[in-house]
Amino acid sequence: MKRIFDPVHHFIELEPGEARLLDLAPMQRLRRLRQLGLAYFAFPAAEHSRFTHALGALAMGTRAFDGLIRHAGGMSPERDYERRLVRTALLLHDVGHGPFSHACEAVLGIPHEARTREILALPEMRAGIEALDIDPADVLALIVGDPRTRYPALRELVSGPNLDADRMDYLLRDAYFTGVVSGRYDADQLVASLRLFERDGVPVLGIDSRGVVALESFVVARYMMFASVYFHHTTRLFERILQEALHDLWPNPRVLDPIDEFLRWDDFRVLNELRDSESEAARALRERIRIYGLAAEFNAGDDLRAYSACETALRERFGADAVWADEQSQVMHRLPLGAAKGATAWVGTASGLVEARYASDLIAKLSGKAYWRKLFVRRDRADMHEARALCAEIIAALR
Amino acid sequence: MKRIFDPVHHFIELEPGEARLLDLAPMQRLRRLRQLGLAYFAFPAAEHSRFTHALGALAMGTRAFDGLIRHAGGMSPERDYERRLVRTALLLHDVGHGPFSHACEAVLGIPHEARTREILALPEMRAGIEALDIDPADVLALIVGDPRTRYPALRELVSGPNLDADRMDYLLRDAYFTGVVSGRYDADQLVASLRLFERDGVPVLGIDSRGVVALESFVVARYMMFASVYFHHTTRLFERILQEALHDLWPNPRVLDPIDEFLRWDDFRVLNELRDSESEAARALRERIRIYGLAAEFNAGDDLRAYSACETALRERFGADAVWADEQSQVMHRLPLGAAKGATAWVGTASGLVEARYASDLIAKLSGKAYWRKLFVRRDRADMHEARALCAEIIAALR
Amino acid sequence: MKRIFDPVHHFIELEPGEARLLDLAPMQRLRRLRQLGLAYFAFPAAEHSRFTHALGALAMGTRAFDGLIRHAGGMSPERDYERRLVRTALLLHDVGHGPFSHACEAVLGIPHEARTREILALPEMRAGIEALDIDPADVLALIVGDPRTRYPALRELVSGPNLDADRMDYLLRDAYFTGVVSGRYDADQLVASLRLFERDGVPVLGIDSRGVVALESFVVARYMMFASVYFHHTTRLFERILQEALHDLWPNPRVLDPIDEFLRWDDFRVLNELRDSESEAARALRERIRIYGLAAEFNAGDDLRAYSACETALRERFGADAVWADEQSQVMHRLPLGAAKGATAWVGTASGLVEARYASDLIAKLSGKAYWRKLFVRRDRADMHEARALCAEIIAALR
Amino acid sequence: MKRIFDPVHHFIELEPGEARLLDLAPMQRLRRLRQLGLAYFAFPAAEHSRFTHALGALAMGTRAFDGLIRHAGGMSPERDYERRLVRTALLLHDVGHGPFSHACEAVLGIPHEARTREILALPEMRAGIEALDIDPADVLALIVGDPRTRYPALRELVSGPNLDADRMDYLLRDAYFTGVVSGRYDADQLVASLRLFERDGVPVLGIDSRGVVALESFVVARYMMFASVYFHHTTRLFERILQEALHDLWPNPRVLDPIDEFLRWDDFRVLNELRDSESEAARALRERIRIYGLAAEFNAGDDLRAYSACETALRERFGADAVWADEQSQVMHRLPLGAAKGATAWVGTASGLVEARYASDLIAKLSGKAYWRKLFVRRDRADMHEARALCAEIIAALR
Repeated sequence: MKRIFDPVHHFIELEPGEARLLDLAPMQRLRRLRQLGLAYFAFPAAEHSRFTHALGALAMGTRAFDGLIRHAGGMSPERDYERRLVRTALLLHDVGHGPFSHACEAVLGIPHEARTREILALPEMRAGIEALDIDPADVLALIVGDPRTRYPALRELVSGPNLDADRMDYLLRDAYFTGVVSGRYDADQLVASLRLFERDGVPVLGIDSRGVVALESFVVARYMMFASVYFHHTTRLFERILQEALHDLWPNPRVLDPIDEFLRWDDFRVLNELRDSESEAARALRERIRIYGLAAEFNAGDDLRAYSACETALRERFGADAVWADEQSQVMHRLPLGAAKGATAWVGTASGLVEARYASDLIAKLSGKAYWRKLFVRRDRADMHEARALCAEIIAALR
Repeated sequence: MKRIFDPVHHFIELEPGEARLLDLAPMQRLRRLRQLGLAYFAFPAAEHSRFTHALGALAMGTRAFDGLIRHAGGMSPERDYERRLVRTALLLHDVGHGPFSHACEAVLGIPHEARTREILALPEMRAGIEALDIDPADVLALIVGDPRTRYPALRELVSGPNLDADRMDYLLRDAYFTGVVSGRYDADQLVASLRLFERDGVPVLGIDSRGVVALESFVVARYMMFASVYFHHTTRLFERILQEALHDLWPNPRVLDPIDEFLRWDDFRVLNELRDSESEAARALRERIRIYGLAAEFNAGDDLRAYSACETALRERFGADAVWADEQSQVMHRLPLGAAKGATAWVGTASGLVEARYASDLIAKLSGKAYWRKLFVRRDRADMHEARALCAEIIAALR
Repeated sequence: MKRIFDPVHHFIELEPGEARLLDLAPMQRLRRLRQLGLAYFAFPAAEHSRFTHALGALAMGTRAFDGLIRHAGGMSPERDYERRLVRTALLLHDVGHGPFSHACEAVLGIPHEARTREILALPEMRAGIEALDIDPADVLALIVGDPRTRYPALRELVSGPNLDADRMDYLLRDAYFTGVVSGRYDADQLVASLRLFERDGVPVLGIDSRGVVALESFVVARYMMFASVYFHHTTRLFERILQEALHDLWPNPRVLDPIDEFLRWDDFRVLNELRDSESEAARALRERIRIYGLAAEFNAGDDLRAYSACETALRERFGADAVWADEQSQVMHRLPLGAAKGATAWVGTASGLVEARYASDLIAKLSGKAYWRKLFVRRDRADMHEARALCAEIIAALR
Repeated sequence: MKRIFDPVHHFIELEPGEARLLDLAPMQRLRRLRQLGLAYFAFPAAEHSRFTHALGALAMGTRAFDGLIRHAGGMSPERDYERRLVRTALLLHDVGHGPFSHACEAVLGIPHEARTREILALPEMRAGIEALDIDPADVLALIVGDPRTRYPALRELVSGPNLDADRMDYLLRDAYFTGVVSGRYDADQLVASLRLFERDGVPVLGIDSRGVVALESFVVARYMMFASVYFHHTTRLFERILQEALHDLWPNPRVLDPIDEFLRWDDFRVLNELRDSESEAARALRERIRIYGLAAEFNAGDDLRAYSACETALRERFGADAVWADEQSQVMHRLPLGAAKGATAWVGTASGLVEARYASDLIAKLSGKAYWRKLFVRRDRADMHEARALCAEIIAALR
């Protein structure tokens, strides 16, 4: 049993076969992919990698699984398989990400799920998974969220939209490494409250009613981390600049299509290759030059009138090319519990299984679509002072 | 300079005159009043006293004041007076509380503000305050929230409904001692974001727009602590039992009217006096007997139909005397940002001073009246299983 | 399964029978005995009770036991008994303490182990333990450290001098509630490193060699908590004053001999009874009057010459009655790993089982007898300035 | 005023000119130098950079300086210069490090102090420092520890062997990011206890006697981090492998002599360049292959007989080339308070200024030379099992 120290989960224990999987090149490469991309431009200490997150997700998923089983009759050979499956899927779930994840996907056009499929099919990866006596197809199905999996509850735990161990770890981890206190939530109580329920004959993941407060704290942590970190204007603007730099770096994205070539890229290499580039974007990244400035942000309610009016005014004043409208839907880490079907968490109450928003005033209030927007202008085309004053006036008039 | 160790604020420094004030009997008595009354029935470690909270409020208020002054032109002789005034007022702000605070007030009928007035007028207290070169009348005005004070912004800082140092400390402290993670908020950033603004010629306390996320975390902490701790059903039911015991203990409440007699009482003495009482309530407190059981709780939205229907049904089935309906407004620690006038926090934005709910989607959503209710029944009059089933059925039908 | 929130261990789970044991009066009484006695005179937040420590010791012992078993072949019916036994013994281990523990024992003259024996024999306690299917005699043997117990390794875990769960919890807990950072140690790693070894045919508790650093951190935490908290001069001097007050309160100690009468006393009652006492000691406790002042302290090495010279000089100058010499051996929480036989911890290394001091440079250096002393003088008999100067001169001359 | 979030110090505030200094390429490069080199092979989360440490050292130094000044008469124009000087020196103190610091120096042969001198002389750096109205020569003198500086106490604070802000930050930071609890010390109390004393007419940095416990916790933190992290066998062995890889990468070290070329290298680039190397060392780093195995470690006392006997036996059995003896003096982060002259901290007591070891039993015991050793063997030349057994036998015989 290999014991790994982690500041978030203290100890993480790995079986020898899992440790061998971890030593394979596609997993070691995750050490060179940062969990939060360029967020270190806003939060310097956010330098943690997807590698530690993969370990943390495994740890969190194991705690969740063990808790579930304890309330559902204990272990069995079948469940022993499920336990190993969940651990492996969480360990491998980010293996398909490219450098700076979102920016990379935007430029190269291949989703990380597709990359994951190819990587899991590599002989050494396949062999490593099979050595754990697990079917690689089961692993893939959990990671990509295949609705046909035989393990629907485990799929929720690995890649579901709410009670997934992926999110449970990254919220804690991102809060720890950025130093944003309000991203912490009551993980112990959340995990202790997880239960397996049945709806229409299908097992679903849910929460015991004693855990509603913990679920609320989890929902709030998502909200706070989104507001503080994931949608921070500094991060957003440097990610946009990075995207421009990547276009220059990879004029022909198809070159990275072969999985072997793709795996030869990571954050470190990208930064390295940009060292000598003369492009405006590369220089901005090297010297932290803010090509764009924030003119206004909008996050109150569903009234987009002020936003639209400001955008129009900025475009008219400085030209359409000078304005960049950034919205929440372009961000990977989405806001919690949107209106979309299935985007809920189930709560077992005395009066039956109910949606979380019926068990919690707070979740009811925070559910639903979010209408967050940021308006940036290019500093070389617009006077920031004028742009901000223009927006401020429009906003005040519409209040 | 006396240096005091505190797990929440690390170091708290006191001037010699402040330390002497602390050693007076009415302040030392706060060591025997618990900050959270009977909450230790639900959270065993919540044994912290109002004494440590008084120190913590002073520490928090000082940090807030120093931050404000730094952004408002630095110290001056006048501000040095204000600084000492704020510190003294926060150190003394809870001195008028009786044993188990709320229960005591309900039985004795005299609000703690009136007691505070009398206590501050005691010769030794008066002399102690004057030795700090402070006018006791100014201290009293800040503590009781007198609208005629010459220091309206300091009043907000001491006893306001939102950005008061009292609440800033007790949320952190109660979260620390109960162990409820989700009650923590980003105090450093909140304090660093406090600003003095002017509205209609009057100074008001507010938040710089960079601090909106910290304000959100503060609002959420209030919500989470309310949901987890202050309105916990175990605490609530034992507080009700305690109230019954106090009625037995003090058949004539007027005996405690004289302030000297009042000051001779504290939590420890009450528990001591109840040791040999034969009353049902006293025994229940000693042996942790739950006279009441929770039949149902309601915290989703403003629809009170299910609550009313359940209450009626329980009364009809078990008798009016067997049912106890507990609501949020009976609790001392109220939910944040009610609809009431003035119950807002101001935010300084590029487009002027706005209410917090216009600067934050989350605050807008969490603002407004809360309709939280709990229904208890007496266990000796009602079968708990039946009572819960009755409510569950009604709730399910109305969903 | 009852789930209890604790800030040190997060969740503590109790079986229904254990929860019923907890509700008995002798256990609820522990809520009114503070873990650190009068240390709150020096560390205001040190108001935590022996009740929360009892829960914490159970939690810590359970983690330790489960870890041991995992490395020793897993559970069995016999081990299930041992697990329940360890939990019960730790839950009950402090039940025999009187108000302010050490001071009470010094005045009443009956050790807490003897009280424990009587309390466990009370019908309700006996019945409560037997309802858990445990032999009360086994519980008593572990608590009082009976060398004839059939469970020598469990005795070490409950009441041993080094690797006991009692100490593992109280160090963490006292560090948490006082706010003394340096009392924290790496509990996760320590517990994960515990192992059962055999020496001369007897099972002994020890540490896997990977855990030496964790053991070092544990030893250091003992040292730091002793230096910062347990032997703090303010605590020590008020405990001495308290002892004087208790002599006045209980002129005939024999009155408290019957266990029923003894159990009617707790910290709260003592403080309550001292409210109206006119004795100098009682008044000093109420108003925080330092009757004694610290003239000098000695904690470097084994050279007691300066200490002896100072003591003699103070006695000569101010009279023997004016001087109080306080030494480490009068304190309950002793320094780590004295020279005494058996006072070691075993470490399993590649070259066999060795004493901790052979596996760790730090432990070797910190082992051995400690010669710590404090010299106090009565403030009404001696000028503190003069007393301190007298000692300072002697110390400088002997350096 | 720029406000930066940091998980260790919460907020760090920078003047605009300091922020501009931070944006220069030689400072941004520190984001690509990891504070702990290859320690992430043993502690995966130890991915933090020298960049965040530079900010943290500035924050720590500022706290220390402000505390010192408060006890030494407050600010003055001269001290305002000193404050800016300390901040700038700490911000820049690591700017001369190369990739993987120690390994890089070992291969290239130029100490980082010499690099720092050259970097500070670069026009943009020089201009950035002068824009803060600071003499670059003063900055350099503090960083390299020039004994002729006009600011001897500040030199101690920046680069002294004991009470330097560099170490104060890196211990906290390394403990936070590795997750090693026992590396935390009581920084608040240490900083609050710092004082300026005078010895032989020269100002020296020291500790008020109330701070001895905090100093002890600091000394212990050094010890524990050394034992747990800095001298961890996994880190040590991969650093040795890295050194071999760097020799292959830079066959002619002189190529990196010019400072412009040197600054083009960082950890990321080294790892990138090693991607395609066919050397054994490069492959070992990529795939985490342990070329060496730990045969035995020695850390108890000053008796090196067992160590020497084991080394000889291993060399005889497996050949001299198969054995690598690693000792503490080869590590950058040295053990505390060695026997060397000046390696002490001063404590102000009632009987005058004394060395720390006379004020603290613990520091006396931990002072002095450390004799820690590790013996590794090449796994391709030696059977690990046999090598360990060989050592174990020798150690047991000599005990």
